[in-house]
Amino acid sequence: MRLIRSVSALSAWRRRLDREGVALGLVPTMGALHGGHRTLIRAARLSCDAVVVSLFVNPRQFGPGEDLARYPHQLRADASLCRAEGIDVLFAPSREDIYPGGFGTVVAVPTLSRRWEGECRPGHFEGVATVITKLMAMVRPHRVFLGQKDYQQVAVIRRLVADLDLGIDVRVCPTVRDADGVALSSRNQYLTSTQRRAAPVLYAALRAGRAALLAGARSAVTIRRSMQRVVSSESRARLEYLAVCDPETLEPLRRVTGKAVLLGAIRIGRVRLIDNMLVTR
Amino acid sequence: MRLIRSVSALSAWRRRLDREGVALGLVPTMGALHGGHRTLIRAARLSCDAVVVSLFVNPRQFGPGEDLARYPHQLRADASLCRAEGIDVLFAPSREDIYPGGFGTVVAVPTLSRRWEGECRPGHFEGVATVITKLMAMVRPHRVFLGQKDYQQVAVIRRLVADLDLGIDVRVCPTVRDADGVALSSRNQYLTSTQRRAAPVLYAALRAGRAALLAGARSAVTIRRSMQRVVSSESRARLEYLAVCDPETLEPLRRVTGKAVLLGAIRIGRVRLIDNMLVTR
Repeated sequence: MRLIRSVSALSAWRRRLDREGVALGLVPTMGALHGGHRTLIRAARLSCDAVVVSLFVNPRQFGPGEDLARYPHQLRADASLCRAEGIDVLFAPSREDIYPGGFGTVVAVPTLSRRWEGECRPGHFEGVATVITKLMAMVRPHRVFLGQKDYQQVAVIRRLVADLDLGIDVRVCPTVRDADGVALSSRNQYLTSTQRRAAPVLYAALRAGRAALLAGARSAVTIRRSMQRVVSSESRARLEYLAVCDPETLEPLRRVTGKAVLLGAIRIGRVRLIDNMLVTR
Repeated sequence: MRLIRSVSALSAWRRRLDREGVALGLVPTMGALHGGHRTLIRAARLSCDAVVVSLFVNPRQFGPGEDLARYPHQLRADASLCRAEGIDVLFAPSREDIYPGGFGTVVAVPTLSRRWEGECRPGHFEGVATVITKLMAMVRPHRVFLGQKDYQQVAVIRRLVADLDLGIDVRVCPTVRDADGVALSSRNQYLTSTQRRAAPVLYAALRAGRAALLAGARSAVTIRRSMQRVVSSESRARLEYLAVCDPETLEPLRRVTGKAVLLGAIRIGRVRLIDNMLVTR
């Protein structure tokens, strides 16, 4: 594995692949790698000849007052996970390399960014869309591997890859969970052990929503209430949103007549947790 | 020359070039080709192994009430100019091919788009930035050829090409003018012959600005006044703006201490004309 820390070195490496007909996979990350990332890397290695993991804590997708300053940095541990997984390049550029002076371009997908995470975190998806467009332009992967845990982010990236004709195959891997159902996330390490014991409530709420649907509920209000009831049973959890949405447009549904995605976000202390579940009537 | 009318056919053609080490040039146009475009095509042919001319009247860069509906369409004449100039591909996609249902991504360069054309034409540069990003992603040129006449557009495209790491060389060709100084533009054909006789006033104003500078004027107010005086001498011309700007940031200058760009826009009847001149103290 090569650790590459500059855009120019990455480009030089990438150009050398051009004549080799290599299928290249990209796993974009903000580091603090966990089992969810490992699944993405393994999926990439299975279907690609070469794999780049990018590691960049993107300041533009953090809002003011969010956890940018304390976001975990652990390059050494991340590099050793990547090495153990047999990736080809770990690309960990500096902020100055990604956003040099005078930087002024924004990529946005307004239709998919307005609600849910976008409403709670203004500017978040513009930051995501801009940096992923840059990373995909630099790495020029054939396939990019994303985790379903960030459902709305996946929707935004799928949309921009199609809309900007990037010709990249977006592969989504299922959410990886701890034994108690909590979706793996770099932010879980912020939780105290007491808070961690409260964290399964979000997944439990999503399961309650699915159970309501399977029991015959069609109205989104009913399904949402069954999820809310679960969250409100946990005094440590503060609800941000629970929604029953169209899986493509992410617009809220009134009735579930086919596929739907249940989206949820809660806070436990200062830690925000998100999760989601695809369901079918 | 091949006339290609779909994105999928373009992509298939482009992929075949990948293993040939061909330097590919792109001349993006909205058709109604004139001598300015011819200069761009010739510059592209001189420095590239293969040249694509794109022809797409991009609805997203026209504001409400602008001239989208009457913008000249003359594919047959455009194709014959392209054929005569020996280009390889004329890419003329449909609107549905460029903006299929569900399209929702925007590329923007807010810092460079706020003033001048961006103020007169809200949304214009978002439309330009979005479509050029798409065209560059589809054609994957090594070089793109733009006319200096659209100075602010060039600045926006340069910025986004750098910011999004597109790795494309942006080449700017000088404005081509009629004998009386009027910059060639597809919109000139809207002018009646009486209006056409008034059109040189914009270039005359820019020359007056440069003359003031060469005569020792340093204050932007003074230079602008000398330009305004020329425009107001022509009763058919209505001033939109005349500005003395930093050539990189396009911010207005108070004093000219090095390089500057003079930017101007006027209306004659319903026709908007723009022009610019780079000057050095």
